[in-house]
Amino acid sequence: MPYSSFQSIKHHGFKTEPQFTEKYFSQTQDHFNFNTMGNGTFNQRYLITDKYWKKGYGPIFFYTGNEGNIWEFASNSGFITELAAQHSALVIFAEHRYYGKSLPFDKDSFNIPQIGLLTVEQALADYAVMITELKQQLAATDCPVIVFGGSYGGMLSVYMRLKYPNIVAGALAASAPILSTAGLGDSRQFFRDVTADFESIGPECRDAVRGAFRQRIQSEFSLCKPPSSAQDIHHLNGLLRNAFTMMAMLDYPYSTHFMGSMPANPVKVTANQYLYLECADPTGCGLGFDSLAWDYQACTEINLCYESNNVTDMFPPMAFTETDRKLYCFKRWAVVPRPDWLKTQFWGDALSTASNIIFSNGDLDPWANGGVRKSLSSSLIAVNIAGGAHHLDLRGSNDADPVSVISARKTEADLIAQWVKMERTKLQQSL
Amino acid sequence: MPYSSFQSIKHHGFKTEPQFTEKYFSQTQDHFNFNTMGNGTFNQRYLITDKYWKKGYGPIFFYTGNEGNIWEFASNSGFITELAAQHSALVIFAEHRYYGKSLPFDKDSFNIPQIGLLTVEQALADYAVMITELKQQLAATDCPVIVFGGSYGGMLSVYMRLKYPNIVAGALAASAPILSTAGLGDSRQFFRDVTADFESIGPECRDAVRGAFRQRIQSEFSLCKPPSSAQDIHHLNGLLRNAFTMMAMLDYPYSTHFMGSMPANPVKVTANQYLYLECADPTGCGLGFDSLAWDYQACTEINLCYESNNVTDMFPPMAFTETDRKLYCFKRWAVVPRPDWLKTQFWGDALSTASNIIFSNGDLDPWANGGVRKSLSSSLIAVNIAGGAHHLDLRGSNDADPVSVISARKTEADLIAQWVKMERTKLQQSL
Repeated sequence: MPYSSFQSIKHHGFKTEPQFTEKYFSQTQDHFNFNTMGNGTFNQRYLITDKYWKKGYGPIFFYTGNEGNIWEFASNSGFITELAAQHSALVIFAEHRYYGKSLPFDKDSFNIPQIGLLTVEQALADYAVMITELKQQLAATDCPVIVFGGSYGGMLSVYMRLKYPNIVAGALAASAPILSTAGLGDSRQFFRDVTADFESIGPECRDAVRGAFRQRIQSEFSLCKPPSSAQDIHHLNGLLRNAFTMMAMLDYPYSTHFMGSMPANPVKVTANQYLYLECADPTGCGLGFDSLAWDYQACTEINLCYESNNVTDMFPPMAFTETDRKLYCFKRWAVVPRPDWLKTQFWGDALSTASNIIFSNGDLDPWANGGVRKSLSSSLIAVNIAGGAHHLDLRGSNDADPVSVISARKTEADLIAQWVKMERTKLQQSL
Repeated sequence: MPYSSFQSIKHHGFKTEPQFTEKYFSQTQDHFNFNTMGNGTFNQRYLITDKYWKKGYGPIFFYTGNEGNIWEFASNSGFITELAAQHSALVIFAEHRYYGKSLPFDKDSFNIPQIGLLTVEQALADYAVMITELKQQLAATDCPVIVFGGSYGGMLSVYMRLKYPNIVAGALAASAPILSTAGLGDSRQFFRDVTADFESIGPECRDAVRGAFRQRIQSEFSLCKPPSSAQDIHHLNGLLRNAFTMMAMLDYPYSTHFMGSMPANPVKVTANQYLYLECADPTGCGLGFDSLAWDYQACTEINLCYESNNVTDMFPPMAFTETDRKLYCFKRWAVVPRPDWLKTQFWGDALSTASNIIFSNGDLDPWANGGVRKSLSSSLIAVNIAGGAHHLDLRGSNDADPVSVISARKTEADLIAQWVKMERTKLQQSL
């Protein structure tokens, strides 16, 4: 998950998975209004492989795509296909509307008011309708469906199980900050936890970064052009803070090409190299369509008002308050954020009636403490991955994997096997 | 529930309940789009009484208003206030958007595209937001909420528990045809069951009606003007069919003023009087705003394609197929119905993960067999009311009540008491 509304993600260098076939689904533009501009359809992209599927019997593993090109998630979630091989499962990765190639109004999608059909509810309804219709088409109506997702995609997996348990039998939600994005918790948590990652390498690392932010920025980094205003410096500070955050999130034990290229153990490497940055020019980072879409989501339903203050964290004091958000969002998108809505609509921490959800988190990940860290019942299971970064468990097996993630994947596989079995029994009883 | 998209309901003669205070809630026009015309608020009416409430402690009994003036439901659901007196509960009756005085765009509400914000999802979100905010305002955040509803209002109560169990602890859904309206079941069931009610008085009654429909209509009924075309005769047949249907639905053991005036036991009375009709002129019945709104709902999400055929029922052969519906709805409202949507969105008969819902039905009610008639688990309870009409159990106690409804209300009261207790324990644990 990009961590702020100003985050940009670059998609490049990921290897495509030839086992997937790319297809398009004719999707309803507006599930919640029969009389708007959206009373038509658009092409929603999905990737599918039946390489491992026992046709008409094996379960369906469905990735609830998040904020980006779906190929990127498919290429960085090898665990799902590994598990599919064990379970004889059909695998589908569905692309989230307004990302990648799934644009409801083509190149006009990011205009006002066309952007208005970008909501969490529409995305979930897309997946509900797509699963229902594909099951019909593929003669798979008796096949249990398990949803998977990482980060915001993990939030969507949780929400699918909460809102559509008629369609999905269980959810693996990896690194899903369902609490913090609903406005629950401490707005200082996020950057405090980024800081903690660097601190864990050595307090001198944290102090060096904190000190660097106190010095004049221009002398420290070579920029394409010098920052010309207070606003530029603020923006530059933000970008630098991003870079550190990405290193903490993507602190995988091997080199990756997910959300940009990262060496193995980037936090440690950075501590040694002092600074590793791909892009620190406020005029040059660019904002792709995916970033536009995420910016909109952070301006409407998803709460991402995290502050840094240079006291509980190592970053420059940069608040992003509800008021800042409101001003920015109205100016940029003509919308007024609804900070309480996500909690009302998707239950906040009142999850006791839910079942069959795994909340996995890695303790290196600054998003972890915005999610569910303790099991809530025998079927709402928190899995902790010591030394794990942002949804490490969804990645394919790797020789550099710590024992913790191997064990987490085993737990997850066992629970999913149980859910599939339970759902099969239920489906057979209702025949 | 009006039973077809062409049904008109007259509201008159109901007595207001002075114990309720009429208030208005500032409600979001569009919960699912931040960028449309609906990015404002409107005044949603609700009725409230704290006469019985143990402030800050007693539960909240919330009626999820359906297709009409909310005063009418409050005046015909005396069971809820009787139960509130026992439980020291706060009682709220919320009016459904686009009905009564709760018009999101005032007198323009029934224009296209303004009508587009009339959906089940918007109505549920209204109730979720209203409950959450009123609980804050009334210092009632620890008070368990139970929802109540009859007919379509009962469907909404079920859906509230399915989709917002974070907000409501249980639901009493009286005469809620959640299956038939989702397109599940037999399209002949409805008029077959109306016919059965008349048949139960005596087969000669059914035969007399069936015969009457075979004769020329004009000679049988005095009309303001004679029917001038085949279309008029079709319309007249429909109105007559409605009248019989209303008698079956509203076959209460005492005279009522709900959805028009009815004598006690109207099916029996009619059998004696041969025919009782308030209105049989296709040009003169009129269509109020409430009927317009219901027509729209039957053209979008709610499936009401019931046929009569004069074989399995006593009515003239009148099909209303999906094709008829599609043509009518596109012409009238510029919408295309989505027959599969309600089942996808509100689970159809895949209710096994739900809990704390009572599905009550009276066996005189032609809607009954479109609902849940058998308990699905220890917390999804079907209650049958022998000799009961359309949500008789929600009405206040009456000397003419059959034993069956007295017993049903006792069962309901006991279950609700359990839910309130369970929820209180849960809320205390989460403190």
